[in-house]
Amino acid sequence: MVNLTETQSRKDDHIRICLDEKVQVNQITNGLEKYQFTHVCLPELDYQEIDINTTFLNRQLNTPLLISSMTGGTENAQLINQRLARIAQKYGLPMGIGSGRVIIEKPEIASTFQVRDNAPDIMLLANLGAVQLNYGYNWQECLKLVEILEADALILHFNPLQECIQPEGDTNFKDLLTKIEQVCDKLPIPVIAKEVGNGISVKMAEKLINAGIQAIDVAGMGGTSWAMVESERAKNPLQKELGKTFANWGIPTADCVRDIRQQYSEIPLIASGGIRNGLEVAKMLALGADVVGLAYPFLKTAMTSEEAIEELVKLIIAEIKTVLFCTGNKNINSLKTSQNLTINN
Amino acid sequence: MVNLTETQSRKDDHIRICLDEKVQVNQITNGLEKYQFTHVCLPELDYQEIDINTTFLNRQLNTPLLISSMTGGTENAQLINQRLARIAQKYGLPMGIGSGRVIIEKPEIASTFQVRDNAPDIMLLANLGAVQLNYGYNWQECLKLVEILEADALILHFNPLQECIQPEGDTNFKDLLTKIEQVCDKLPIPVIAKEVGNGISVKMAEKLINAGIQAIDVAGMGGTSWAMVESERAKNPLQKELGKTFANWGIPTADCVRDIRQQYSEIPLIASGGIRNGLEVAKMLALGADVVGLAYPFLKTAMTSEEAIEELVKLIIAEIKTVLFCTGNKNINSLKTSQNLTINN
Amino acid sequence: MVNLTETQSRKDDHIRICLDEKVQVNQITNGLEKYQFTHVCLPELDYQEIDINTTFLNRQLNTPLLISSMTGGTENAQLINQRLARIAQKYGLPMGIGSGRVIIEKPEIASTFQVRDNAPDIMLLANLGAVQLNYGYNWQECLKLVEILEADALILHFNPLQECIQPEGDTNFKDLLTKIEQVCDKLPIPVIAKEVGNGISVKMAEKLINAGIQAIDVAGMGGTSWAMVESERAKNPLQKELGKTFANWGIPTADCVRDIRQQYSEIPLIASGGIRNGLEVAKMLALGADVVGLAYPFLKTAMTSEEAIEELVKLIIAEIKTVLFCTGNKNINSLKTSQNLTINN
Amino acid sequence: MVNLTETQSRKDDHIRICLDEKVQVNQITNGLEKYQFTHVCLPELDYQEIDINTTFLNRQLNTPLLISSMTGGTENAQLINQRLARIAQKYGLPMGIGSGRVIIEKPEIASTFQVRDNAPDIMLLANLGAVQLNYGYNWQECLKLVEILEADALILHFNPLQECIQPEGDTNFKDLLTKIEQVCDKLPIPVIAKEVGNGISVKMAEKLINAGIQAIDVAGMGGTSWAMVESERAKNPLQKELGKTFANWGIPTADCVRDIRQQYSEIPLIASGGIRNGLEVAKMLALGADVVGLAYPFLKTAMTSEEAIEELVKLIIAEIKTVLFCTGNKNINSLKTSQNLTINN
Ligand SMILES: Cc1cc2nc3c(=O)[nH]c(=O)nc-3n(C[C@H](O)[C@H](O)[C@H](O)COP(=O)(O)O)c2cc1C
Ligand SMILES: Cc1cc2nc3c(=O)[nH]c(=O)nc-3n(C[C@H](O)[C@H](O)[C@H](O)COP(=O)(O)O)c2cc1C
Ligand SMILES: Cc1cc2nc3c(=O)[nH]c(=O)nc-3n(C[C@H](O)[C@H](O)[C@H](O)COP(=O)(O)O)c2cc1C
Ligand SMILES: Cc1cc2nc3c(=O)[nH]c(=O)nc-3n(C[C@H](O)[C@H](O)[C@H](O)COP(=O)(O)O)c2cc1C
Repeated sequence: MVNLTETQSRKDDHIRICLDEKVQVNQITNGLEKYQFTHVCLPELDYQEIDINTTFLNRQLNTPLLISSMTGGTENAQLINQRLARIAQKYGLPMGIGSGRVIIEKPEIASTFQVRDNAPDIMLLANLGAVQLNYGYNWQECLKLVEILEADALILHFNPLQECIQPEGDTNFKDLLTKIEQVCDKLPIPVIAKEVGNGISVKMAEKLINAGIQAIDVAGMGGTSWAMVESERAKNPLQKELGKTFANWGIPTADCVRDIRQQYSEIPLIASGGIRNGLEVAKMLALGADVVGLAYPFLKTAMTSEEAIEELVKLIIAEIKTVLFCTGNKNINSLKTSQNLTINN
Repeated sequence: MVNLTETQSRKDDHIRICLDEKVQVNQITNGLEKYQFTHVCLPELDYQEIDINTTFLNRQLNTPLLISSMTGGTENAQLINQRLARIAQKYGLPMGIGSGRVIIEKPEIASTFQVRDNAPDIMLLANLGAVQLNYGYNWQECLKLVEILEADALILHFNPLQECIQPEGDTNFKDLLTKIEQVCDKLPIPVIAKEVGNGISVKMAEKLINAGIQAIDVAGMGGTSWAMVESERAKNPLQKELGKTFANWGIPTADCVRDIRQQYSEIPLIASGGIRNGLEVAKMLALGADVVGLAYPFLKTAMTSEEAIEELVKLIIAEIKTVLFCTGNKNINSLKTSQNLTINN
Repeated sequence: MVNLTETQSRKDDHIRICLDEKVQVNQITNGLEKYQFTHVCLPELDYQEIDINTTFLNRQLNTPLLISSMTGGTENAQLINQRLARIAQKYGLPMGIGSGRVIIEKPEIASTFQVRDNAPDIMLLANLGAVQLNYGYNWQECLKLVEILEADALILHFNPLQECIQPEGDTNFKDLLTKIEQVCDKLPIPVIAKEVGNGISVKMAEKLINAGIQAIDVAGMGGTSWAMVESERAKNPLQKELGKTFANWGIPTADCVRDIRQQYSEIPLIASGGIRNGLEVAKMLALGADVVGLAYPFLKTAMTSEEAIEELVKLIIAEIKTVLFCTGNKNINSLKTSQNLTINN
Repeated sequence: MVNLTETQSRKDDHIRICLDEKVQVNQITNGLEKYQFTHVCLPELDYQEIDINTTFLNRQLNTPLLISSMTGGTENAQLINQRLARIAQKYGLPMGIGSGRVIIEKPEIASTFQVRDNAPDIMLLANLGAVQLNYGYNWQECLKLVEILEADALILHFNPLQECIQPEGDTNFKDLLTKIEQVCDKLPIPVIAKEVGNGISVKMAEKLINAGIQAIDVAGMGGTSWAMVESERAKNPLQKELGKTFANWGIPTADCVRDIRQQYSEIPLIASGGIRNGLEVAKMLALGADVVGLAYPFLKTAMTSEEAIEELVKLIIAEIKTVLFCTGNKNINSLKTSQNLTINN
């Protein structure tokens, strides 16, 4: 694996740059700061009996926590994926793998994406840029990717801003909807639409649902900013500046979740983008998310060790349970219907 | 007193840690900053005739100021309690004693809680964690505690968040309400429900009042954060982090008082949690509190000397009187009905 | 003048302390920051013809600027008064003199208050604490004071907060209204009611107007804080702290002016308290003030030289005229009716 | 060009001072921070096909970007003008030239303003202070100026605040409207009304439109502050202070644009004043501007090199296109009608 393709070296760049604080959205937030839980001084619960199971796309999950799609394609990526996968298996977490375009280009590196051996039972999500459907991929490649990874669902991600800032950007997003419809139609597994940090509006959700998308991951604004990541990568000063201008572009994650859930009471919904602890996870659940995804915090701990990832998962679980306890809710369903979350005034 | 029980050493930890600024709620406040008194340039009063007497649970109090429940169980605690008690006696202040669970466990240390000799005439409040009713205590122990301390009322405190963060946390809060009802029923003295810094909502107040509770101390958010205190004490990194996540959890004291008073015009109501001077005491009275409690400021001065406590009491009294004078109110009743407190816009 | 009476040394303390930035209200403001003039790009005026004359208590004033009541009683005070008086004369500004209680106590120092020689033509305002009517003064002393100073009107100031913080405070404000009524009735000149930095509410204005007061100087919150001044002077720690607690107590000047003018369209109204430049003067005029008073800025410049005072007056006049020009108003009457001042949203 | 007239040396002063950060409005903003675009994750567009053409005063423009009126009259100014003109020609940008009063005074320096040789095809805007119509200029001089510069339109600028702060200020703005009417009537080319950084209100827009003005450049508050520029230039302390007091005077650019467009759906409208990147340009277009002007950023880059100006233009174009792409708009017309811009709450 000495000869890295351009795509491979980009993947390593992304990991390195994403670890840097300054590519996090900084002036604005995921939109959660305006929501507050009302404390319940007398929960009438036994903490030991609190249960954070949930159901997502007809799968039972131990905890409503997702390891968001990140990487693959290099040795480093492989190590990260395997560490994450082993913890996902241990805690029953669903997990996304990074965009699999490179697998089709260079099948010999598929192993850097494959985590089924380490996580035989988890809900595994393959990932591909939706725009690739305009650049030589169609439903057959999607199917192949899913099969190679033994995935349970396919995420199609949308990243128009990132593509604008990349020098090598794929910026023809024309007529994608028809092609997405075909993928949804042909694939035997669910297809999930996902942004990468700028959010999905209700209007877009509507189009995607009508095209046959079975779940939405809003991946909203508030955390990792791909405009900033590409700005850091850019050699060209124009692209460097362009990325900075759009550092805080997007719809706050909380707004996406609240708005989509209000319109679509049934659509399986993932909240992600700037979620940093279990208190925020719980707020997103209360706003209507079914599962909550984190990327950056998992990347950071995965660089350290499997134990670090596990500590993070345990902490988040404890935080979610503490919210449930201190709001008097025995399980997540109860939290969702409790109307315990209120807006600051 | 060489062999400290686990509970005893925890008590000394609490005192040490509570003296540290950083366990005070910092990002948000007790909720008072949005309220403002309207100045009265011509009071038509003689300051000398201003009277801050009040009535609470059928007792006449010289001043509507409470020394909140804090400590007991160790030599250090005993010194603090005695100093506070002598000032309480001198100024006619009601005073709470720290949770008395340890007294039942280890009767030989009861003396560290007993302050009647130093304060024969004050309204004295015994204190016990409500959750102990699920851990081997029932109304008989409550009665015993009250008798040992010669208390005039019993505070049952609710601290679900703190229990979540303690490694040794008592987190079974199930079926407490029935047991509380029994305590209220059997005890010959009033029972007061109190939080420890996260506040009591109207909904909870309703349940507690229906169970027979005769007064409420909201002990809301804005001052000492028990999540932070337990975070400081924790050896385990997960608990350290967990505490920090919930550092600012809770209902602001002012919101609790306003909401409960609006719903229950008659319930004896104590405002506490983050009150730091007599101007804030007066705002709480105007919002509907009958008595206002402080813990941290009394702890801090008690560590210094009896004189320091007395200086604090005198200052708070002067501040309350100054508010009364500069709003043209002769007494607290007049303040409460004056509608002089308004919300900033 | 070697043997300073207690009142005299207090006067010198006040001057010294008032020059210190830290006795200015700091966390909140005079309330003007929320008002904004709408720029007029095409004024259709000749700046040279702009006129800032005004009428106050039937006197024609060149400029709607008042040198607020400050001092007297010591050599230093005399120097300040004389410098201010000469500029007042030169620019036709009305001027207040410090509280004249000491004159009655110690007639030999009357000269430190007398400025008629230096300012034969100005509108001169004598000053007395209203509360003195409860401490041995009545309308006869008021009249005497006015005669000694050759004043055109008498200001009765109200300072309940300041009196609370002074060790020697005169805090019996009972039944003052009847005595004020008598003063208004007996005196051949107008009586003006004035606060000292905490503001006059509409409710108080109503009482004062009903008692016969002919003009109001709101002297609202936003500038010199007498709570802080007395805190600085205090030797006693309780009073030091008490003053700090009330550092920002009061009704913002802008709110007083807006509210009183809304209720009383005709009452002669002075805005003062925290006004620091001619743009603020103009905003106060637009809010309904007839004259705008400054104390601290005049004190500061008066300590330097007569020229410094003059520079200040010229700057303020230029600022007022610039506002008139850039809002397309030829004179102050036009500004008041132009509705050019709007509230930020 | 050794003997600089007073006007000439003022021009060089202006350039030097305008390059300094501190003459930028600092406490308040151009008003855009409250507007946010809603991200469109699936644009259904090919970025390559995005088109930012626009029409202004019946001219087709490649890009809705204007180089705002700045300078002329000195060698330095000539260099700046020529560099800007060559880029304007290359990118098809309209360009304003600095106020041409000095050309009539001193025709031999006309060349420092003339850019037609460098920019044969652009829309070129001559510039004159409207107030000069009260100081010896009339429509004939206006016509002459336009002819000398071979301009396509004439900007009449309004700068009452700046004139108040200049020692040599021309502050007779009386009866200008009639004279403007005449200029509009006689000139064979369009006349544009423009402020210089304090904004044009709807009320003023109405008067100007009624007088025959054919386009408006709001030149609102938020960027270069001419009060501060004149303050920096002033030798006299009064003028120095006066300028500082009015540093943030004016109507925010965004407010001017929104309000005028709401009232006048057809008037050709230029947004300028504090616009600093293409994201802000796009927001102004969405608020209703037809063309967006920048002065300070062009001055800064022009001092460096032609390449620096070109980099800036390319960056702004890329930013505008990125906004169009990420809001799913193919062209500016579509952006304007898309209602994609919303107000933060
Ligand atoms: C190193 C890295 C690589 C990523 N690669 C992908 C990807 O291939 N596909 C994808 O849909 N999202 C990718 N993302 C985006 C994340 O899935 C997520 O939407 C985004 O980072 C926001 O979440 P966060 O704020 O928790 O980091 C990547 C994120 C990181 C940090
Ligand atoms: C050292 C210390 C010990 C405390 N122990 C108890 C206790 O035993 N029982 C109780 O109800 N509250 C206890 N509290 C909580 C206080 O009574 C009070 O509700 C809380 O500190 C908020 O008030 P504050 O912000 O004025 O400190 C304790 C507080 C402190 C500082
Ligand atoms: C040194 C000093 C002495 C003052 N003495 C008096 C006084 O004797 N009588 C009075 O009515 N106000 C007195 N004031 C208050 C002022 O008249 C004014 O109301 C107050 O300072 C608020 O205005 P400012 O913020 O412009 O200073 C005094 C103020 C200062 C600074
Ligand atoms: C150096 C300089 C000279 C200027 N000269 C003129 C001028 O002669 N005529 C004019 O209408 N505006 C002039 N302006 C104002 C600009 O056209 C523009 O309205 C103002 O600077 C606000 O835009 P900005 O914030 O992008 O700088 C000048 C601006 C600068 C920086």
